This record gives sequence, C-alpha cells and structure tokens, in this order.
Amino acid sequence: MAFTQPVRTLVRDGDAIVILDQRRLPFVTATCRLASLEAVAVAITSMQVRGAPLIGVTAAFGVALALRTDAGDARLAQALDTLAGTRPTAVNLHWALARMRARLQGLHPRSRYAAAWDEAQAIAHGDFDTCAAIGRFGVEPLQALARRRSGPVRIMTHCNAGWLATVGAGTALAPVYEAMACGIPVHVLVSETRPRNQGLLTQWELAQAGVPHTLIADNAAGLLLARAEVDVVITGADRIAANGDSANKIGTYLKALAAFDNRVPFYVAAPLSTIDFDCRSGAEIPIEERDADEVLSIAGVNRENEPGQIRLAPSTTPVANPAFDVTPARLIDGIITEHGICPATALESLRTPRTA
Amino acid sequence: MAFTQPVRTLVRDGDAIVILDQRRLPFVTATCRLASLEAVAVAITSMQVRGAPLIGVTAAFGVALALRTDAGDARLAQALDTLAGTRPTAVNLHWALARMRARLQGLHPRSRYAAAWDEAQAIAHGDFDTCAAIGRFGVEPLQALARRRSGPVRIMTHCNAGWLATVGAGTALAPVYEAMACGIPVHVLVSETRPRNQGLLTQWELAQAGVPHTLIADNAAGLLLARAEVDVVITGADRIAANGDSANKIGTYLKALAAFDNRVPFYVAAPLSTIDFDCRSGAEIPIEERDADEVLSIAGVNRENEPGQIRLAPSTTPVANPAFDVTPARLIDGIITEHGICPATALESLRTPRTA
Repeated sequence: MAFTQPVRTLVRDGDAIVILDQRRLPFVTATCRLASLEAVAVAITSMQVRGAPLIGVTAAFGVALALRTDAGDARLAQALDTLAGTRPTAVNLHWALARMRARLQGLHPRSRYAAAWDEAQAIAHGDFDTCAAIGRFGVEPLQALARRRSGPVRIMTHCNAGWLATVGAGTALAPVYEAMACGIPVHVLVSETRPRNQGLLTQWELAQAGVPHTLIADNAAGLLLARAEVDVVITGADRIAANGDSANKIGTYLKALAAFDNRVPFYVAAPLSTIDFDCRSGAEIPIEERDADEVLSIAGVNRENEPGQIRLAPSTTPVANPAFDVTPARLIDGIITEHGICPATALESLRTPRTA
Repeated sequence: MAFTQPVRTLVRDGDAIVILDQRRLPFVTATCRLASLEAVAVAITSMQVRGAPLIGVTAAFGVALALRTDAGDARLAQALDTLAGTRPTAVNLHWALARMRARLQGLHPRSRYAAAWDEAQAIAHGDFDTCAAIGRFGVEPLQALARRRSGPVRIMTHCNAGWLATVGAGTALAPVYEAMACGIPVHVLVSETRPRNQGLLTQWELAQAGVPHTLIADNAAGLLLARAEVDVVITGADRIAANGDSANKIGTYLKALAAFDNRVPFYVAAPLSTIDFDCRSGAEIPIEERDADEVLSIAGVNRENEPGQIRLAPSTTPVANPAFDVTPARLIDGIITEHGICPATALESLRTPRTA
C-alpha cells in the first residue's frame, strides 16, 4: 500500500509552496510559505528543509518560483546558480537543477513558468515513487532477518533519512515503514546526530508513524553493535561516488566501521539521483564545513516549554564542524535504490537507467 | 618540572575536603566543601567529581570523613560499601577503597581516623606522581611524531582524562602537558563527548593551561582521522581487563576503530590501578547505564550568561544511555602507565608491581 506522510513535508499552494519548518521540530509543528527564489534559498541554507531528496525537490520548485515575473535566460541562470550554491555536498540538488535546466533552457520564456511547475511536480512525484521502490527492495533483508530471530528486527540509523527527508516514505526508513506495513516487527535505534540533532527529527517522525524506537547518543552506537543489539544498519546518503564511496551525515563512517567490526550488515539507501558518476571516489566529494555555533550552542525548549537555546562553551572556542563524512565502499553491504539492491562496488551497472 | 594544576581539583581543608565542582564548568569555577561520607557519595554519583583517578582519591578521603565521630568496624564497612556503590565501571574506586580497607581494618578504631587521612593523602600523592610518570613515558611517541613533521603534533582525545580527572597532570593529557613543558608544539582535538559533554571540560582545562586545541562533535572524529588530520589518539580508561580490553567513556571504541582503519596510533593512558587483573576480558566489565535525562536535556548558559538547561526531546522518549564502551586490545597500540608503555596484549608483565 502507498505510504502517507503523517504531515506533508512540501505541498504546492497556488503560486507558492508550503513546507514543514524542520528547524522547529520536534517541539513545534509549523509550516512556512515560500513564495520566492530567495525564500527557498534561505530555507535550504538554514535547514528549514533538509534531507538530500527533499532539498532537490524544494530547489526544483524554487526555480519555478523564480520565474513568475521574469522567465528570461538571465533570470533562469541566476535561479539555477543561486540554488546550486545553497549546499555543497548533496548531489540530488544538482541533479534536480540539471533536470530543470534541461527542460526549460530550450523553451520560449513565455512557456517557462508553467513548464517549471510541471517539471518540479514531476520531480516530486518521482521522489515519492522512488521512496516506495526503495521500501519494497529494502524490506527484503529485513524479512530475511525477521525469519532468523523471534523478537523485532533491530535497525540502527543515523541522521534523518525518513519521510521528513523526502516527499514520500524516505530513503533509509522506507524499508522500515514497508516492514511495518507487512507486519514485520521492527525496532529502530536512533542516534541523536550531533551537532544538528537530526536524530530527534527521526525520533519524532517514527513516533508520528507509530514505529517502536530508542534514542541514543551517537557515541553509544559502537557498544550496541558490539553487544549484538543491532541486526542491521541503514543510512541515507548525500552523494555516492562512482566507486561506491558514500558521503552522508558526519558520523556515518564511524557506524559503518563498528558494523563491519561486528559483522552487522550496513546498507545505504538512496535514489539513483544520489549517485554522481562524474565523481570517481569519495576523495573527490566536497565536504561542507558549517558554522562553529552549531557545535557551541543547542536549541530546544526551556522549563516552560518555550523554544530556547543554550550555549555550551564560550563563543570564542575554536571549532571544526564538517557536516559530512565518507564511508568507503568496502564497508557497505549494498546500496538500496529504486532499481534494487546493488553491491557498492558495482554501481556501473546502474549508470544507464539514470542517464537515459 | 612538576606540573601545577591551574585550579586544584581537591584539597584538604581541616576536617573536610574542598573539590572543584565540575558540574558547573566550563562557565563557573566554583568549589564545594564536602564534610561527610554522604556528601562525598553524592558528589561522585552526580559527577561533581569525575574521572577514574580522581574518583578513587575522593573516595579515599570519603572514608576518612566517614570515621570522624565513629571509627568502629560497622561504620568502616558501611563507608566502604556506600562508596563502592557510587559508580560501577571505574575500578580505581575499588582499588582505592581496598587500599583504605587494608590499611585500616587491623587498626584499633581510635587510630583509624588519623590513619585514614594519612592513607588518603598517600593515595593522592601517589596519583600526582603517577600522572607525572605517565607524562614522561607518554611524551616519547609525541617526540617521535614531532621529529617526523614540521607543524604541531595533532593529538585527538575523548572525554576528559586531563588534570581535571586527577590531582596531578591527568592521564591521557599528561603527555600533552609534558610536551608543552619540553617545547614540543601540540594541538589537541577535543570531542565534545555526549551525553555529558566532558569534552567541554577538556576544552576548558586546555585553555586554562594555554594548550592550542579545537573542539569537534563526536561524529567528526572519523572524518578527521581519514583526512590525516590526526597524528595520534590518546584516551584514558576506567577499567582495563587482564587481556588489555579497555573500558572508557562511551564513544572511545568508535575512535579506536577509526584510528585503526587509518593507521593512526591509538594509546590508552592510565595508572596501574586501572588494570583489573581479576577481570579476564572486556566482556566481564560492568557497563553503567545512566539516566535518560542525560540524553534528553543539556545544561549550559542562556543568553544572559546564567546557568540554564534545555530539553531536546519529550521526557517520555525511550532512551538507552550506556556510559562506557570497551575497546578491544587488538585496536590499542600501547597502554601508557607509570611504569612505561606496555603492549595492550602483554599486561601480565605489569602484575607484580601493582600487587606488591
């Protein structure tokens, strides 16, 4: 059956889009109406929308919004440039913008505005279908694990690659929702994912969908794997190189190492649009360095349940804050895409469907 | 030259001890006067004092405080029991209490109070000397690394195993302070160490001592090691099994895996009293499970620079919060003790000096 998002992450509203403001989760479920290119760019940079697939879809709508009053060549180029500069690591963004460019470039400016909405909507529908396919393929290893044990299948994930990161069921969590739909008992181990704590988004989205789960500090992942309290690890990806090396939220590589050391299978779930065949290996993937303040202060709610923020260390503290790391293909048991589960070292076979 | 603590972690004050209240760091440098067994037990449990060596020293003074008005057998036994129950993983606590028992048990109750202060003071002096010796032995690999590169030696650590964790120069950080004293340029990479953020204590103590450093999220350790931005990893330990498996703050194992995967040496620095020869392997080390609230809320300062706390997720969120993990001996390049650097798999040779 088709997955229904408990809260929609992105919907069109006339000449604008309405997004779920993910910076206010898990405490406040608020939406944000974006009616301009600039508003979309800020929403992506500030992580009001986040998750590689959702960033791609949102950017596509950002192109449409940009063309409302001026759809000339210069404006189109400016829109594509502005959006391409919002986040450097996720490749789905560039894939979506390339699709928008290919569709719009040859058209007369008068036809571009309507065509941009059509293409953005097609990208969104494609994302929904892709999530569903990833769920159908990714549930197979969970079914196999369920047959081998009596309790729930214990799935560890990192960051948020669930329905909040897409317009569908998610990537890493699509197999989890598919398992729930199939009656396979599951339990998800959610690491908080410092410094931005996207694990709290995962905790929230699993709670919304009624999936049993446990929140852990990122540091606890190794012990739980070593204690055989995890059956499988599934994460998303922001960019996958041609050789299978996968960039994902900082900390993913540590989980992959611990899974490998304890012979627990480690899967990456991502749409084909995440594979960058122009990028030969992980060493070529640019790693975004974000603001020190993400490490030095944390947002949440105070005693009165009002949004608050506290500082952990003086603002002068020297900080390094890389947002992604690269998991080598040798640590990955398979890449779950909408075309099936592929060994990380054999992605070449997937090149045709994507570039076709 | 002898290391001087910028702020003393523990000093005797008549019939009481004065400790630095580590729960209020890094924002407030406040002390706390402990005049009873109960106050000491609470200080250890609540982590006002923390760090395996300092816990041992503090507990020894706790025995002395317990015997002020009643030094009978029952009171002595009660004091030892109460203190032994404060933290389950660190073995220095049990080592210090065993030393106190051995010294006091055979004495007439009238002699016990003075003898308890003497013995606690001797344990404290021993800790100071041990830190200095660990520094002298541990600086050797740093010297060797300094000869091989032009910039500073980049040392990654985890949690706090510096002067704040001892009454001397620390364990993992003693070699860093010794390097500073020897004019070897160093730069320390400090992981914040969720959920209790003891990395912020390390950041504070390094700043107090003028040591260059950078704070990172725990998740960033793998990327920095993979990028060859770290020359050596040194951590402390809370209990080392006879086979060299080492329990330390949760997350240490992940750093050891990443160091191993990138051929970066990984050392554990700890006094001999941390080695538990009665414990055959890491699987036998009890792992403390702490309160969910440590993961769900964080303390710091608010905009007005006043102590504050925020909640990250609803208090009903299911949480697992193990406080330690175990790094297998195969991932450890050496254990730095006050007797020299020993291969983790050859600890048997150290058994005599400790039990003598």
